[in-house]
Amino acid sequence: MTPTIFIILGITGDLSGRKLLPSLLNLYVNKRLPQKFAIVGFSRRPFTREEFREYIRGHMKVTPGEYHEEDIKHFLDHMYYEQGQFDDSQSYASLAGRLKLIDDGFHQCSNKLFHLAVAPTFYETILTHLSNSGLTIPCGGNEGWTRVLVEKPFGNDIDTAKKLDKKLGDLFDEIQIFRIDHYLAKEALQNILAFRFTNSLFEPLWSHAHIDAVHIKLFEKIGIEGRGGFYDDVGALKDVGQNHILQMLATVAMEAPTAFDAVSIRKERAKILSNLSPITTKNVRAVTVKGQYEGYANEKGVKRNSQTETYFRLETYIDSVRWKKVPFYLESGKYLSENKSEIDIYFKNKLDPEKQNVLTFRIQPDEGIKIRFWVKTPGFDMKVEPKTLKFKYADFSSLQSIPDAYERVLFDGIMGDQTLFTSTNEVMAAWKFITPIVESWHKVPLTIYKRGTDNVV
Amino acid sequence: MTPTIFIILGITGDLSGRKLLPSLLNLYVNKRLPQKFAIVGFSRRPFTREEFREYIRGHMKVTPGEYHEEDIKHFLDHMYYEQGQFDDSQSYASLAGRLKLIDDGFHQCSNKLFHLAVAPTFYETILTHLSNSGLTIPCGGNEGWTRVLVEKPFGNDIDTAKKLDKKLGDLFDEIQIFRIDHYLAKEALQNILAFRFTNSLFEPLWSHAHIDAVHIKLFEKIGIEGRGGFYDDVGALKDVGQNHILQMLATVAMEAPTAFDAVSIRKERAKILSNLSPITTKNVRAVTVKGQYEGYANEKGVKRNSQTETYFRLETYIDSVRWKKVPFYLESGKYLSENKSEIDIYFKNKLDPEKQNVLTFRIQPDEGIKIRFWVKTPGFDMKVEPKTLKFKYADFSSLQSIPDAYERVLFDGIMGDQTLFTSTNEVMAAWKFITPIVESWHKVPLTIYKRGTDNVV
Repeated sequence: MTPTIFIILGITGDLSGRKLLPSLLNLYVNKRLPQKFAIVGFSRRPFTREEFREYIRGHMKVTPGEYHEEDIKHFLDHMYYEQGQFDDSQSYASLAGRLKLIDDGFHQCSNKLFHLAVAPTFYETILTHLSNSGLTIPCGGNEGWTRVLVEKPFGNDIDTAKKLDKKLGDLFDEIQIFRIDHYLAKEALQNILAFRFTNSLFEPLWSHAHIDAVHIKLFEKIGIEGRGGFYDDVGALKDVGQNHILQMLATVAMEAPTAFDAVSIRKERAKILSNLSPITTKNVRAVTVKGQYEGYANEKGVKRNSQTETYFRLETYIDSVRWKKVPFYLESGKYLSENKSEIDIYFKNKLDPEKQNVLTFRIQPDEGIKIRFWVKTPGFDMKVEPKTLKFKYADFSSLQSIPDAYERVLFDGIMGDQTLFTSTNEVMAAWKFITPIVESWHKVPLTIYKRGTDNVV
Repeated sequence: MTPTIFIILGITGDLSGRKLLPSLLNLYVNKRLPQKFAIVGFSRRPFTREEFREYIRGHMKVTPGEYHEEDIKHFLDHMYYEQGQFDDSQSYASLAGRLKLIDDGFHQCSNKLFHLAVAPTFYETILTHLSNSGLTIPCGGNEGWTRVLVEKPFGNDIDTAKKLDKKLGDLFDEIQIFRIDHYLAKEALQNILAFRFTNSLFEPLWSHAHIDAVHIKLFEKIGIEGRGGFYDDVGALKDVGQNHILQMLATVAMEAPTAFDAVSIRKERAKILSNLSPITTKNVRAVTVKGQYEGYANEKGVKRNSQTETYFRLETYIDSVRWKKVPFYLESGKYLSENKSEIDIYFKNKLDPEKQNVLTFRIQPDEGIKIRFWVKTPGFDMKVEPKTLKFKYADFSSLQSIPDAYERVLFDGIMGDQTLFTSTNEVMAAWKFITPIVESWHKVPLTIYKRGTDNVV
């Protein structure tokens, strides 16, 4: 593996400490990083290298005792710090100097990943400076690629997303751009493709001929957790609907890709998202629900008369032969009765519509697959009752071998596999579907719901 | 419920003590027998009524503490004894008198079931005497039906079965005749019909288009257990193949019945059995295996040069649109590695024939259903591995509510439901398939296998 430098812009932020650094540490300990690698943190705070390592040691969320202190120490030896301002050319010049020094130490031109772990408001500034400073130009002609990793939200509606995309497109090639939706990298979601296309038992049933409805749920037990200022401008639909839920939908509904590679798979996902039947002022009242939990408007950072939804349910269809007239219900909310993210596939039963089979992909927690089926109740009558065929990921012998989604994302970023990242076509199709809903949603009354319910309406 | 007398011919035999009486006791305790009922034992031994009840109390296999002594005592109060010889007209006249006395006590003409719990050699004698003595004539014109319950083996080949069937047919109507194959009454086997025709998920896949092969197994860990004299004349194929295994095959392969009643279901089972592709001298070497466990020929009661099989495997096909070219493997043996009776359905996988889905109906023990499916191995590669979706009958909240197959058989006999009994057409079709195999089997060399193996060949 070519030497690689992982540059985290916004290293002192929450995402770095909670996800990026622990994932990199785990990749390091499991020897999945190149022999020669460095992590360079870029941020505004003044740190000496020693202070920086101290800070990282405390900032990085690692379960006590999970790793040998020795391993953590060696990992920290790979870390460097560059103080700078996101809007200051000189800072990028210094960063370039720092990277050059590390490359000199490697005696080789290294690959470079720039991870934008910052609020989206900084994207444009950072991307422009990265490009202008020449940092994204490979150091060795054809060698030493450069890539940029971008977090969600990717824009705020179709227009801002287009603008951001154009910016990215002007500065980078699509193969350099890694748009993260960590849901795609969750094992249980990745498994859906393996499940669908390896098990001949299910694919023949995977169409409107046998499927009655698909219900995609992302339920959260918690509220906005002090993030009122951010959340109130976004709402549930844009926060998790535009990305996670639509990616779950695309994965479960897509056609078989012509090959199991990034280009083919992303193409099929994008097709599904482009074929979603639009929700507009004409039908928005009939097919959507928006809710807000009791007390939301009193949360810190939230406008007192806020109309922002903390819950939504949509009914949509996919304009394709396979999915003709099959409703897809997309549902998510804060302060519901439990944390769960799952996809339920309801199968038609023409003889007895009340006795449906239901196949459930549980994405989190308690990852697994189950099938509700009907079995004869033991005894003297011919009665049936619903029971469950179950599989749990916990049945894998070594649970610890299930990689965290972020670990997978970072590893694939290094390896250059874009399968689990969203393409520009996917992002645009998602916004094309979401934006008209947001724009017509003033027509739908806001339902105030009690915390802890699962029946908002 | 009309008063009913259950007459057990051969009450001192093994079957009575092990199955019939415990089942009747359980039906009694669970209030499933008519208020007015009696059990009359008929046998050769001299007993006073008191001695008889004593004998029954000791003879009846009941787990200590399973029932209140009070309940057992009340159950025994319903029992009567009639000493007699199976070939003596006078004994049947006495029996008739005994039944008349009980009816007088009931102040009503009761229903009567005659259960032939005797060796098949006595069938003809008993059936003739029952008929001649007028015992099988309803006592009250249209009221007080009479039925006869017959155990397997029903004949020894197509000719003897035809002869026995003719005898039965001359003396009784088909609706009076209950041919027991207790396998049909096992919950897990009954459930196959419920499973197939209630779950819309599976029926669309239930044909040669999706099914690659069906494997029906009835494995026993034990040997012939001192029954050498009986077993050596019969062999595995006639002992369990002609009945239990073919009934498993019929249940799993039958077309949907036009109605869920005895006539329709038995008709469909018979159709499958009639459509089995014949195994004759032409193909017997190619499609059958016969085996004998090491040391069998030295067992008590076995001929020293015995060629009797204690193991067989057959490959057969069903001549129907649904099952075109799907092999059904039927396999059974003594002294194999474990006790298990199950049906494995292998589904085709055209893309990757090595990655088949397998649906297993476990009939006994550990009754349940499982599906072998393929799931992504957690980790950084797109690899899959086989795992299992499972359901176990033990998951039903009250395990004790699973009735024993014999209990169900006796209850249905009383209720007159013939669904779980084999019709004359089924018996004849089964023998028509089995007899040519037996007659051509001298062409197949006997494989001597080690005890405890599962790989006879």
